[in-house]
Amino acid sequence: MLIIQKFGGTSVATPALIQKCASHAQKEISKGNKVVVVVSAMAGVTDQLDAYVREISLAPSMREYDVVVSSGEQVTCGLMAIALRAMGLPAVSNLGWQVPVRTCATFGHSRIEGVDPTGLEEALSQGHIPVVAGFQGVTEGNELTTFGRGGSDITAVALAVALKADRCDLYKDVPGILTADPRLVPQARLIPVMTGQEMLELASLGAKVLQPRAVEMALNLGARLRILSTFEPGQGTLIDLQEKTMEKAHVRALVCQKSQAHVSLSHGGHVSDFLKALERAHIPTDMISFVKDDVVLSLPQDKSAQAVSLLGQITNAPIALTDGLAKVSLVGNGLRAHPEILRTVFDILDERKIAVHASCVSETRMSLLIDEVYAELVLRLLHTAFDLDKEDPHAPHLQSA
Amino acid sequence: MLIIQKFGGTSVATPALIQKCASHAQKEISKGNKVVVVVSAMAGVTDQLDAYVREISLAPSMREYDVVVSSGEQVTCGLMAIALRAMGLPAVSNLGWQVPVRTCATFGHSRIEGVDPTGLEEALSQGHIPVVAGFQGVTEGNELTTFGRGGSDITAVALAVALKADRCDLYKDVPGILTADPRLVPQARLIPVMTGQEMLELASLGAKVLQPRAVEMALNLGARLRILSTFEPGQGTLIDLQEKTMEKAHVRALVCQKSQAHVSLSHGGHVSDFLKALERAHIPTDMISFVKDDVVLSLPQDKSAQAVSLLGQITNAPIALTDGLAKVSLVGNGLRAHPEILRTVFDILDERKIAVHASCVSETRMSLLIDEVYAELVLRLLHTAFDLDKEDPHAPHLQSA
Repeated sequence: MLIIQKFGGTSVATPALIQKCASHAQKEISKGNKVVVVVSAMAGVTDQLDAYVREISLAPSMREYDVVVSSGEQVTCGLMAIALRAMGLPAVSNLGWQVPVRTCATFGHSRIEGVDPTGLEEALSQGHIPVVAGFQGVTEGNELTTFGRGGSDITAVALAVALKADRCDLYKDVPGILTADPRLVPQARLIPVMTGQEMLELASLGAKVLQPRAVEMALNLGARLRILSTFEPGQGTLIDLQEKTMEKAHVRALVCQKSQAHVSLSHGGHVSDFLKALERAHIPTDMISFVKDDVVLSLPQDKSAQAVSLLGQITNAPIALTDGLAKVSLVGNGLRAHPEILRTVFDILDERKIAVHASCVSETRMSLLIDEVYAELVLRLLHTAFDLDKEDPHAPHLQSA
Repeated sequence: MLIIQKFGGTSVATPALIQKCASHAQKEISKGNKVVVVVSAMAGVTDQLDAYVREISLAPSMREYDVVVSSGEQVTCGLMAIALRAMGLPAVSNLGWQVPVRTCATFGHSRIEGVDPTGLEEALSQGHIPVVAGFQGVTEGNELTTFGRGGSDITAVALAVALKADRCDLYKDVPGILTADPRLVPQARLIPVMTGQEMLELASLGAKVLQPRAVEMALNLGARLRILSTFEPGQGTLIDLQEKTMEKAHVRALVCQKSQAHVSLSHGGHVSDFLKALERAHIPTDMISFVKDDVVLSLPQDKSAQAVSLLGQITNAPIALTDGLAKVSLVGNGLRAHPEILRTVFDILDERKIAVHASCVSETRMSLLIDEVYAELVLRLLHTAFDLDKEDPHAPHLQSA
């Protein structure tokens, strides 16, 4: 088996931790697997470099910004190769430009256009262990680029696709994907297997474990991801793209986003202008719906004043703003096709007389905007009602790796 | 004029200092000059990276070591370009592999084989200001290399040669080259102009201002160096390679190396074996001379025990070791051809009955091994005797730049 192993910033925060990560690679190799290691910058390094840049300029040349911040992954890449070699494993570092990982020239958040697998394949065939610096690539004109925060996941997925890896293991500081935030729902459990679509919904709803772009790339190009802990033993969460045949409707996980606001106003034909104005100001909106002549939408509370001001420049209609809300989301499959799920949710809310300010439902996601004070209560009730407290009845058993 | 400006580690130790360095470039540009900026790593960064490596392995792969430590100059290179751009100057960063600076594959202390000037020349012709990461290069096989400590000076000199620059300004945390260490000789003065041969002698005698390899390259390939302060105004010291016609004998500067030892033993035909053994143990020797059947040499005191042990493995002859010595050196021109210089030195020593344990004289250097307690006294007497307290009578006046 060929396995891509990617280690995040907290996993490689110190030389001693880098050695620990190296032992994960050693373990797979001792099982007869081939491994390509992808690394992030040591935790805190990218922030430090970013602070240096900001001390000099608040609007830096993004070409030069990328030169500065891509150095973080370069350091870890060399250190990881040294750690593996110290274990007697023939590791060789590869920076993004050396692979090369080709990107467009949109500095600061460039997109991968292609990965040339030739050099890495040759190294693997010679029994070497390529270590690749995440987060970075190179343009046709030999200029360094980076992919934005979380970009090392993208490198790992892109390599998994280019090298046709059997699996892409993303080592993090969490044991995998949980059914809910354990700080809010004590009964939260690890999810052993989930679909790519579910992962994409979770990532889009702010679960910080995985970059939405990395999930999207895995979904589109067919990489088998696993999210697991650097620090604790365990199989983590496998994101199985083949698992598309799960006909049975189910709720896989719950997500709660607090400090949300709800805006409601008469649209007067201006909906597109509203959305354009908010998008231009990088205000993320969600749950857009129409009630008679009014349009309602949700957005983060810390952007609500700015949003009201922007909308007020477009229309004279009164704007109703409700702060102090929470968006509780169910992620799963068949959520719209199976009305019993929706009914279960509203039974729980109605019984406690909890008002729903807005809701939206798709096959893979249902979101409810409720008063923030009820968030934990609703999460726990839903967690129990949808059998998430128990061992997942829908997940096939993982083959022991 | 095309000027290479190189800034050392203490000069670029913080983002604010990088901005100060950028203002030096701005000043030259405002005079109508073209500038290429070369940068070291921020002070302390290379040591930090080195410590990370050592925490993982005391015998790291040097290929990977170079990947790690070359990141320091990369950061400064990007930050300097951002600082120049923030001043409205069209700067563009260039890493060693982007120039490219081609080197051999001796990782950790590789030598430059060639600098392709095409890209930098094109950038200059477009009115851009290339910023180049010092200390680093790339092999034919696209592997990163570094030049060893002080390697950014080497980059600056190599660029000066490749681009046929009119001058290579090396900005340091000292005002230039002084006639003596001012902590030992309060009357020490800045030397406005000196020859490359003199600078090479000074660098070889441990004056840490310039890397001997950088001076050697400048001498051999004809780059006009200037050493000056980032922090204080002043013209610094110009190392003028054209200045070979200074017929008049003179002493340019004094150097004192303390904690030296003197070893004396009957050679019995083993001189070559002695030297090989010491060289293999990286023990630097100096002032080798022969007195009847004995060979005498000087070496750093902290290596003397090791040296005696090594020599004892080769010969049974008794070994005389004298510790607590200082090597006082005069650097200048015509020192051997003009016996009055030697006579002046020995007049001073004889008058104070200061014993000379060993001496050696060449055209450009005279060294004396004396008891350490007399070092300051002798330095000050020589400084006065050779007119170094006064404005340099041999130096032509610098044209104001």
